[in-house]
Amino acid sequence: MSSAPLIASIEAGGTKFVCAVATSPDDIRAEFRIPTTKPDETLEECCKFFTDQASSHGSVSALGIGTFGPAGVNQSASDYGFITSTPKRHWQNVNLLGTIRSAIGDVPAAFDTDVNAAAVGEWKWGAGRGVDSVLYITVGTGIGGGLAVNGQPLHGLVHPEMGHIRIPRVEDDPFVGNCPFHRDCFEGLASGPAIEKRWGQDAVDLPKEHPAWGLQAEYLSLALVNLICALSPERIVLGGGVMEQLHLFPLIRRRVVELLANYISSPSILSGIDDYIVPPGLGNQAGLAGGIALGAKALDAV
Amino acid sequence: MSSAPLIASIEAGGTKFVCAVATSPDDIRAEFRIPTTKPDETLEECCKFFTDQASSHGSVSALGIGTFGPAGVNQSASDYGFITSTPKRHWQNVNLLGTIRSAIGDVPAAFDTDVNAAAVGEWKWGAGRGVDSVLYITVGTGIGGGLAVNGQPLHGLVHPEMGHIRIPRVEDDPFVGNCPFHRDCFEGLASGPAIEKRWGQDAVDLPKEHPAWGLQAEYLSLALVNLICALSPERIVLGGGVMEQLHLFPLIRRRVVELLANYISSPSILSGIDDYIVPPGLGNQAGLAGGIALGAKALDAV
Repeated sequence: MSSAPLIASIEAGGTKFVCAVATSPDDIRAEFRIPTTKPDETLEECCKFFTDQASSHGSVSALGIGTFGPAGVNQSASDYGFITSTPKRHWQNVNLLGTIRSAIGDVPAAFDTDVNAAAVGEWKWGAGRGVDSVLYITVGTGIGGGLAVNGQPLHGLVHPEMGHIRIPRVEDDPFVGNCPFHRDCFEGLASGPAIEKRWGQDAVDLPKEHPAWGLQAEYLSLALVNLICALSPERIVLGGGVMEQLHLFPLIRRRVVELLANYISSPSILSGIDDYIVPPGLGNQAGLAGGIALGAKALDAV
Repeated sequence: MSSAPLIASIEAGGTKFVCAVATSPDDIRAEFRIPTTKPDETLEECCKFFTDQASSHGSVSALGIGTFGPAGVNQSASDYGFITSTPKRHWQNVNLLGTIRSAIGDVPAAFDTDVNAAAVGEWKWGAGRGVDSVLYITVGTGIGGGLAVNGQPLHGLVHPEMGHIRIPRVEDDPFVGNCPFHRDCFEGLASGPAIEKRWGQDAVDLPKEHPAWGLQAEYLSLALVNLICALSPERIVLGGGVMEQLHLFPLIRRRVVELLANYISSPSILSGIDDYIVPPGLGNQAGLAGGIALGAKALDAV
């Protein structure tokens, strides 16, 4: 049994919360999943889980949280640890970190977006092992992205909102886009709900030969090219429900190479694209693993 | 007189090289400018400058270089310190760092892109003072961008190539773009030569009321929105020849706020946009200052 410190990890999603007590993704001592309802209910149950675990496994040494957002990730800001201006009813301005800490105690903690946590998780234990900078993009109900550079998530003004970049429209695509803020941004054109709205049926029901997938690959490729030019990641991990359509990967890889047109002269793109744009190595555990990694890192920083 | 260490700095541009020996941008002991011709000629003169300075000012303690690119900025790669696949005749695969070191000696050194150096310079001494993450974009003969996070330039696979992101076309703009790689990427639509080609006259000769500027502001704003969503910078500094048209700034600020549509709920954007998107604090000295900062940092890291 590992002697690594015990970490509390939370993946706070818009539809469910996943909590764990673990030393690594391979050594999860207990895991707990509940639907995301109202903050009082959901967080109370999470707190109860951690309190119960403390009595059976002992206290955790640190806490890592990856959450849906927007979220206050700036440690020196007054909204640090909060879910902030989310469109999700009830969850605006909720002190997620503070509430969990009230159960766990004042251990070293890290609080970040779900996608930043996933980027860190994939960097440490998943498809991003061995490189310095990992871009994680999720394409599902929404689209989001996080960048980890040497295990450190990229922050700044707030946190990246990669789903909302503007990309060129494909000329014969009549769909106007469904982002309530920007209409035809990346998310507005290529999220799961956008696919469903454009084609009148759920993405999972569309056959592989359906023109939906070529169009989807085009929009994903345009966005990835922009993120490659902006961030220069050493590996790109594409997760989320839409990316479970693995037949998208070869389409995207081919198109990204075409669109970059030999401008980025790196072997990763010129000859290694199959290992450059990849599915998550941790499946849907990237976020939870990222929480563990973030917690461990917060402990190291003390 | 400062007792800070003496740093050799080079801003290696496509049209000229600027070399300096300094402890800070306010304490430049000697400066030297020459046109960029062939590597042998240009670098020999730079080396001679530094050798001469060593006899009058004493040896430098470190070296910082910001260069046009693409350039090898990964310290563990075999092309570190090289200008690599540049379209600029004669300058492909030139060992810039190694050549300068042959004159200066094996002092701690940092080698980066011109825009990363400028981002670091603006962060340390210019318009980016007081914030953690600074995005520097130059809009001139080409378009490029660099991000400094706590003074550390963002690297990865190679370095960012922010000028080559794809942005939506403005519908009634008939210009096809002039990027030899991507045609209508950001640089292909909005660099100085693109403006000149579209309107048939040099940008500096276009009056302020000319529709060129509204269109230019639109493309710049679309690109900035993407970079804000990808990088979440705390400040954006816009330099280069085209941005000397200061009347562009209010147009861009207004349009960026509109395009983000309240999605990024940060006071910097919602109420502080005039201080968020700004001209360089160091004028055209950002790159040279960045070289000094990078050199000083390399020395600290020893």
